[in-house]
Amino acid sequence: MHHGAEVLLSLFVVFVAAQIGGEIAQRLKMPAVVGEIAAGCLIGPYALGWVKLNEPLEVLAELGAVFLLFSVGLETRAGDLRKVGRVATLVGVSGVVLPFVFGGLWAWASGFETPKAMFVAAAFVATSAGITARVLQELGVLGRMESRIILGAAVIDDILAMLLLGMVTAIQGGGGVNVVSLLVVLAQAVGFVALVTLVGTRVMKKSSPLMDAPIHPHSPLTLSLIICLGLAVAASFIGLAAIIGAFLAGMIVAETQQRHSLERQVQVIMAFLVPFFFVVTGAKVDVRQLGSVSAVGMVAVVTLLAVVSKLVGCGLAALSTGRRSALIVGVGMVPRGEVGIIVASLGLQAAVFSETLYAVIIAMSLLTSVIAPPVLKALFSGEKPEPHEDVSHLIGVEETGHS
Amino acid sequence: MHHGAEVLLSLFVVFVAAQIGGEIAQRLKMPAVVGEIAAGCLIGPYALGWVKLNEPLEVLAELGAVFLLFSVGLETRAGDLRKVGRVATLVGVSGVVLPFVFGGLWAWASGFETPKAMFVAAAFVATSAGITARVLQELGVLGRMESRIILGAAVIDDILAMLLLGMVTAIQGGGGVNVVSLLVVLAQAVGFVALVTLVGTRVMKKSSPLMDAPIHPHSPLTLSLIICLGLAVAASFIGLAAIIGAFLAGMIVAETQQRHSLERQVQVIMAFLVPFFFVVTGAKVDVRQLGSVSAVGMVAVVTLLAVVSKLVGCGLAALSTGRRSALIVGVGMVPRGEVGIIVASLGLQAAVFSETLYAVIIAMSLLTSVIAPPVLKALFSGEKPEPHEDVSHLIGVEETGHS
Repeated sequence: MHHGAEVLLSLFVVFVAAQIGGEIAQRLKMPAVVGEIAAGCLIGPYALGWVKLNEPLEVLAELGAVFLLFSVGLETRAGDLRKVGRVATLVGVSGVVLPFVFGGLWAWASGFETPKAMFVAAAFVATSAGITARVLQELGVLGRMESRIILGAAVIDDILAMLLLGMVTAIQGGGGVNVVSLLVVLAQAVGFVALVTLVGTRVMKKSSPLMDAPIHPHSPLTLSLIICLGLAVAASFIGLAAIIGAFLAGMIVAETQQRHSLERQVQVIMAFLVPFFFVVTGAKVDVRQLGSVSAVGMVAVVTLLAVVSKLVGCGLAALSTGRRSALIVGVGMVPRGEVGIIVASLGLQAAVFSETLYAVIIAMSLLTSVIAPPVLKALFSGEKPEPHEDVSHLIGVEETGHS
Repeated sequence: MHHGAEVLLSLFVVFVAAQIGGEIAQRLKMPAVVGEIAAGCLIGPYALGWVKLNEPLEVLAELGAVFLLFSVGLETRAGDLRKVGRVATLVGVSGVVLPFVFGGLWAWASGFETPKAMFVAAAFVATSAGITARVLQELGVLGRMESRIILGAAVIDDILAMLLLGMVTAIQGGGGVNVVSLLVVLAQAVGFVALVTLVGTRVMKKSSPLMDAPIHPHSPLTLSLIICLGLAVAASFIGLAAIIGAFLAGMIVAETQQRHSLERQVQVIMAFLVPFFFVVTGAKVDVRQLGSVSAVGMVAVVTLLAVVSKLVGCGLAALSTGRRSALIVGVGMVPRGEVGIIVASLGLQAAVFSETLYAVIIAMSLLTSVIAPPVLKALFSGEKPEPHEDVSHLIGVEETGHS
C-alpha cells in the first residue's frame, strides 16, 4: 500500500512540475513543451531527484504520446495528406539519408569502426513526431500545408528509421544483413499504413451512424479509444512506433461525423496524460555525464550536425513549396525527442555506446527538441497574418464595402 | 521496446474486455460494473490468462478509482452531506461494529485464535465506496438522501476500518495495542477530512473566478486534476484510501462555478480509466482455489455473514429515514470490493490467512460487489417515479392547463 502511495506521489510531482514548467515557458513566449521538458530535466533522477522513473510513469508517458498523436490524427484528413504525398515522401527519405551520412562520417572520423559508426549514425536519423506535432497544435497551424508535409514525412521517416535500426543491429550482431527479412519488415510496415488509411477511412465513413447508436453514453468515445489503442498496439508489434498507429487511428476516426466532439473529448484525456510524456522525456537526461569540457564540445558538434543535416535534407526536398515553407518543414523535422533516446538506449545495451556517448546522444535529442519549437513558433508568427486563408471568394465576402 | 508493446497490449485487452462485459451486463438489465468485474475474472491470470497483472495496470486501476470518486465528489455538495451527518455517522459506525463481531465470531468458531480471528474479522468490515458510487451514478440517483448517507458513511467507515486494521496488525505483530499511536492516527484522519472539507470548501468558493483566468486552455481542468491527485496522495500518506482524498477533492471543487463543465470533462477521463479499476478487481480472483466442495460452502457462509451483518448494521442505524431508505442504505454498504481484497492480501503476507481462506475472502469481496448492484438498481427502479422532485412549485409550472 505504501508503495502505491509513492507511485501516486511521483505522478503528482510530475504533473505539477509540467504545469509550472509549461507556465513559465509560455510567459517567456516559448512553447509550453520546452518548459515541460526542462522541468523533467530538473526534477529527474539526475538532477534534483524528486522523482524516480518507474514503469507506471513510463507507461503514462507512452499513453500521453499515443493520445497526442491520436488527436493530431483527428485534425488531419487523409485526403489532405495524400495531396502532399509526393513532397512528404521526398522529405521523409532525404531527411533520413543526409543525417545518416553526416552522422556516420562524424562517427567514422571520431575513430569508430564501420559497423559501430553505422549504429551511431542511426541515432541521428529518427524524427520525434510528438514534439513538433504538439507545437503545431499549440500554434493552431495543423491545417497548414507545411504541417501536413511534416506529418506525412514523419510517417515515412519512422518506417525508414525502423528499417535502418533493424539493419545496423543485425550488422552489429555479427550476422550480415538479411535482405529478405528486411524486405518483409518493409512490406509489413507499408502494408499496415496502406491498409489502415485506405480500408480504415472507408469503413469509418460508413460506420459513422453506427457510432451514434445510443448503446451507452460514451459510445463514440470508447469505440475511438479502442481503435486508438488497438492500432497503437498493432504498430508496435510490427516494429513501428506505437504513436504512428495512434496517428493513423486518429486520421481514420476523423472521417466520422463525431470528429469535432471527439476532438474536444480527447483533449481532456491529453490534458491529463501528455504532461507525463514531456516530463519523463526530460527526466532521462543524465546532466552529470556532460560536466567535462570535452563532453560539452562533443554535444555542440553532434547537435550542430544533427540540426544541419536534417534542416538541409528536409529543406532541400521541400524546396518546391517555396523557401519559407521549406525552412518550416526543415525545422519541424529537427527534434529527435524520445526516438533518439530509444536508439541511444539500444546502443548502450549493445555496448556500442560508451556512457558518455550515450549522454551526448541523449543531450542532442533533447537539445534538438528544445531548439526547434521556439524557431518554429517564430517562423509561423513572423509571417504577415494570413488573409483568412483566402476563403473570402468562396463565401462571397468582398473586402470593399462595409467597414 | 517489445516489453512496452506487451504492456500496451494488456491495456488494450483489459479495455476491450471491460466494454464487452459492460455491454452484456446492460443487455441483461444489470449495472455495467457487474459485467466489467466478471470480464476481469474471465480474462485474468487465474482463468483464461489473457492478461497478466502488471504494475502499470494496477496504477491505471487505482487512477480509475481515484477519478471515479473524484467525479462522485463533484456531484456532492458538502452542505448536503452535512445535513445527513448524524445518520451517516451512525451508519458508518454500526456498519463497522456488526460485521467485525460477526466475522470474529465465525473465525473464532472455525478454530482461529483470538488475534488471528480479529484479523479475519477486519476483512468483513470495509466497504468499497467505488462500486456503490458507480452504480448510484449509473442510476442517476447521487442527489438522493440515501446516496448521501451512503457516501458520508463510506468516509466514516474507511476511517474506522483503517484504525481497526492498524490495531489488528499491531496485535498480530506481537506488540500490544499502542493506544497513543492509534489516537494519533485517528486524529490525523479526522483532522484531514475536517480541514479539507471546511477550509477547502471556502477557499474554492473564493478562488472560483481565479480558475477562469485565461492562463492556458485547460486551466480549471488542470487545477482540478492537481487538487484531485494531491489530496489522493495526502490521504494515502496518512493511511486513508487514496479514493477518500479524491472524493473530498471532488467535493470542494464542486463549490466552484466551473463544476458542470468539469463534471463533463472528468467523465471523459473516467471513460478511459474506470474500466481498468473494475477489470483489474475481477482479475484478482483465483477461481481455482474455490474448486472444492468445502471451499464453496465456506464462500457461501462467509458471504452470507458479510451481507447480513452489513445489511443489519447499516439498515438499523438508518431506520429513522424509513424502512425502504434504510434497506437501500444497507444494500449500498454491502460491497467489499477492492478494500476486502487489500485486507486479504495483508493477511496472506502476514501468514495469518491460508491460500484457501485468502481465496474465500476475495471471493466474498467480489460476490458482495456483484450481488449488491442489481439489488440496488431494483430497489431504486421499483419505486413510483418521483413527481419531478417537487420543483413544480419553484418554477411556477402548474399541472393543469396546457396539455
